[in-house]
Amino acid sequence: MSEPEATDAPRRRTGGRAGRQAARAASAPGRVPYITRTLPPFEVLTEEGLEIIEQNADTILEQVGIDFRDAPDAHQLFKTAGADVQGDRVRFPRGMCRELIQATAPERFTQYARNPANNVEIGGMHTVLAPAYGSPFVRDLEGGRRYGTLDDFQNFVRLAYMAPYLHHSGGTVCEPVDLPVNKRHYDMVYAHMRYSDKPFMGSVTHPQRAQDTVDMARILFGAEYLEDHAVVLSLINANSPLVWDSTMLGAARAYAEANQPVIMTPFILAGAMSPATVAGAAAQTLAESMAGMTYVQLVRPGAPVVFGSFASSMSMQSGAPTFGTPEPALVLYTLAACARRLRVPFRSGGSLCGSKIPDAQAAYESANTLQPTMLGGVNFVLHAAGWLEGGLTMGYEKFVLDLDQCGMMHAIASGVDLSPNGQALEPIIENGPGQHFLGTAHTLANFETAFYRSSIADNNSYEQWEAEGSLDATHRASVIWKKMLAEYEPPAIDEAVDQELREWIERKKASFPDSNV
Amino acid sequence: MSEPEATDAPRRRTGGRAGRQAARAASAPGRVPYITRTLPPFEVLTEEGLEIIEQNADTILEQVGIDFRDAPDAHQLFKTAGADVQGDRVRFPRGMCRELIQATAPERFTQYARNPANNVEIGGMHTVLAPAYGSPFVRDLEGGRRYGTLDDFQNFVRLAYMAPYLHHSGGTVCEPVDLPVNKRHYDMVYAHMRYSDKPFMGSVTHPQRAQDTVDMARILFGAEYLEDHAVVLSLINANSPLVWDSTMLGAARAYAEANQPVIMTPFILAGAMSPATVAGAAAQTLAESMAGMTYVQLVRPGAPVVFGSFASSMSMQSGAPTFGTPEPALVLYTLAACARRLRVPFRSGGSLCGSKIPDAQAAYESANTLQPTMLGGVNFVLHAAGWLEGGLTMGYEKFVLDLDQCGMMHAIASGVDLSPNGQALEPIIENGPGQHFLGTAHTLANFETAFYRSSIADNNSYEQWEAEGSLDATHRASVIWKKMLAEYEPPAIDEAVDQELREWIERKKASFPDSNV
Repeated sequence: MSEPEATDAPRRRTGGRAGRQAARAASAPGRVPYITRTLPPFEVLTEEGLEIIEQNADTILEQVGIDFRDAPDAHQLFKTAGADVQGDRVRFPRGMCRELIQATAPERFTQYARNPANNVEIGGMHTVLAPAYGSPFVRDLEGGRRYGTLDDFQNFVRLAYMAPYLHHSGGTVCEPVDLPVNKRHYDMVYAHMRYSDKPFMGSVTHPQRAQDTVDMARILFGAEYLEDHAVVLSLINANSPLVWDSTMLGAARAYAEANQPVIMTPFILAGAMSPATVAGAAAQTLAESMAGMTYVQLVRPGAPVVFGSFASSMSMQSGAPTFGTPEPALVLYTLAACARRLRVPFRSGGSLCGSKIPDAQAAYESANTLQPTMLGGVNFVLHAAGWLEGGLTMGYEKFVLDLDQCGMMHAIASGVDLSPNGQALEPIIENGPGQHFLGTAHTLANFETAFYRSSIADNNSYEQWEAEGSLDATHRASVIWKKMLAEYEPPAIDEAVDQELREWIERKKASFPDSNV
Repeated sequence: MSEPEATDAPRRRTGGRAGRQAARAASAPGRVPYITRTLPPFEVLTEEGLEIIEQNADTILEQVGIDFRDAPDAHQLFKTAGADVQGDRVRFPRGMCRELIQATAPERFTQYARNPANNVEIGGMHTVLAPAYGSPFVRDLEGGRRYGTLDDFQNFVRLAYMAPYLHHSGGTVCEPVDLPVNKRHYDMVYAHMRYSDKPFMGSVTHPQRAQDTVDMARILFGAEYLEDHAVVLSLINANSPLVWDSTMLGAARAYAEANQPVIMTPFILAGAMSPATVAGAAAQTLAESMAGMTYVQLVRPGAPVVFGSFASSMSMQSGAPTFGTPEPALVLYTLAACARRLRVPFRSGGSLCGSKIPDAQAAYESANTLQPTMLGGVNFVLHAAGWLEGGLTMGYEKFVLDLDQCGMMHAIASGVDLSPNGQALEPIIENGPGQHFLGTAHTLANFETAFYRSSIADNNSYEQWEAEGSLDATHRASVIWKKMLAEYEPPAIDEAVDQELREWIERKKASFPDSNV
């Protein structure tokens, strides 16, 4: 093993010659840094309006409290910190959660990747885009909808690795339903580690699986390295309304104790898990997430934590979640502002939709979610690509369609170029009335970079489009993901690390029986 | 003829009993008032940034000037006002255009409809949505793409009349290519007058056709009424870069002399008709539109005028316009701010796309245009529904898909409800942890109005969706527009007015030969 090449590179195994090779190989796919926004966030409430939401969250925390179910460690921590604990119920004096969070939680942090070129900043004016998460089904144009497998999982890791506008490998990019529930996480985490070199997410379905993820990260990055480097980000969902359960809390604890960041996310289907109003869903989400973030800060003060919100509206006819509607966008804008005031990173949004297929419904809904995500200033964007059917399905074509939109968000976030070249005053003066700009020196100089180039949009003539088969966007996307997978080459990895990981996984898998619980 | 029922009702013919009948009949379709935004506009530039754009526009007006081609009346007006006129070229002292516009142009105005319930406010915090404009082709699911006819034109007028979220009947909703070019406008304007009672737009393809539109409006509303009521809004395009031509100027003059509002719109395909940068396209657009608005104010000081911008990016490969890309959105946000500083209403945006069909490309692009349109605070939105293929095609299904999006924009624009019911603090407190909200009194009380209900989105289970034929959004939209047309009933009209209009048109048509020039 050789020494690391830079202070912030992983401390072992992926450095040295193999590490340099890895970095070179990994630079093969087009790579665009995480987004640094230049535009101020869009605000839907005044300061006074936001204070109402915050006051209501404090009232909820004080008068109702939050159930931390079957979590004696949480009860003890909260009691010591000054909360009122009765059974599972924890009631917080006004302002307590905010104070504890602001005292120790970082305003932003770096998540380190095994390829340092892929490190991401989470918080502040930065936005990090990650694939969709958690769907049991996958879909492609020819195969239709079917249960996801490990092959699909690995494919989406490969696609995210190759996607220039995704900065993160994500987590459960789909459920590998062909593997036993209690051992899937080994193969999922390994796939992120081996088939990509972007930052990734860990298992949360059991505290032991979270611990396994941490152990694997220690093999990959070196045990010491984790002490002061965030290398695995994990999604902890509340059981709304006003409940955190012991499974999720146990996973959060395992990560926090290892100083690894968690996203404390109330998952709110407004009308079912919260009142059916924007301000109600926002206040409740803020209360729930603050309680969760406070727990993390009590477990390990200073451990990175992200304020998460997943909010959807609901079809009042069928009870199904609905996406791309105005109300979740308003919740997002409201809570993004609350997160800024709380001074913690914020996770929400994505390319959410209810449609079963990547049709116009899917695209309108996804765009209506991704636009607020960007303009609201979300820091970590799960579900930026691939999401279909309320998250039940991960779509291959949808993934590629969304990637194109992620690219556009980079351009929006960079704002208006007011350099002399951007102002282009001289070219206008020199050109004069009635003369087109196509052949001017300014246009030629800006030709390559003037406009975002969509990989999906067909802008040819109608006749040419017709001659090429009158394909819709989904058919064009189908060609693209197949080409990406055909061209995929895995990033290099230190053989010894890889072998240690694989042997460790084999030992673990052999040590207890398969189970689907 | 009876007296008008209210001061701002048309002064003749549509009042009285027939008028009341008309109003009742017209209230049959669902009707939603024009949007009054509660959210502050999204800003992409600081004050200093906007001043740079304004300074550059003034530099263009001063150093290069604008060609008013073959327009001796314009040259004379500008010379008298203090501009430097050399041949067609008019150069403006710095600040002259801004001063003249601000001296007399109204910051906002009412456009009156023959049904007063459909009057719209143009300017300020208001947003008015109108159908797409100008396409030679139409498209529907079964018939595919074909040239538009008068039947199609009338159909789109009917659909816009029935659409609750469109506030305006628009203008050339498609080209009735089956009619001679020099007489189409009679049937188009008549269709808006007869098959709808929403406000509409006039002909601009020849000064005489503009005059004909004014004459028809005088028959419908009464000649005196037009003197102090805006009843027809018209779209005047610049011939960018930096040219206004005599046809468009002649039409603008005919409307302005009748005190009828015009939208002075540079039509910019950035990279061809302006530099390929956001700040360059914005400064040039501002210069061109200000020169045009100044002309209107010199023709008739105080005539309502709208600052228009139509800006698209360009495929640098094919030269085709591209839509839904980041750069036109940034131009829109920039110029909306410039219009607010100039204190005139602003027209831009819509549901623009380059796609030939209403697929995912069309929907992403349209949403990426409509979102900035709303968040930027556009006052008059042409092309809010139906637009396909860069404006070459008006789509029946696209129209219906876009209507649904227009509905969502109403909800976004209304912002966050902070009433006690909106805050919903009591329901959260009463409900407590772990109890869902579906059956609570608060949810039941808000059931009907809590969330925007999409007419298009399928949120049923996968199994039910499959059992119903696995339809995509376009197929669902196809059912909707056919149902709308089947249920259409024309608004009542005073028979005498209708007869006078029809006889006038017949006389006019008979007075000169058909021509397609």
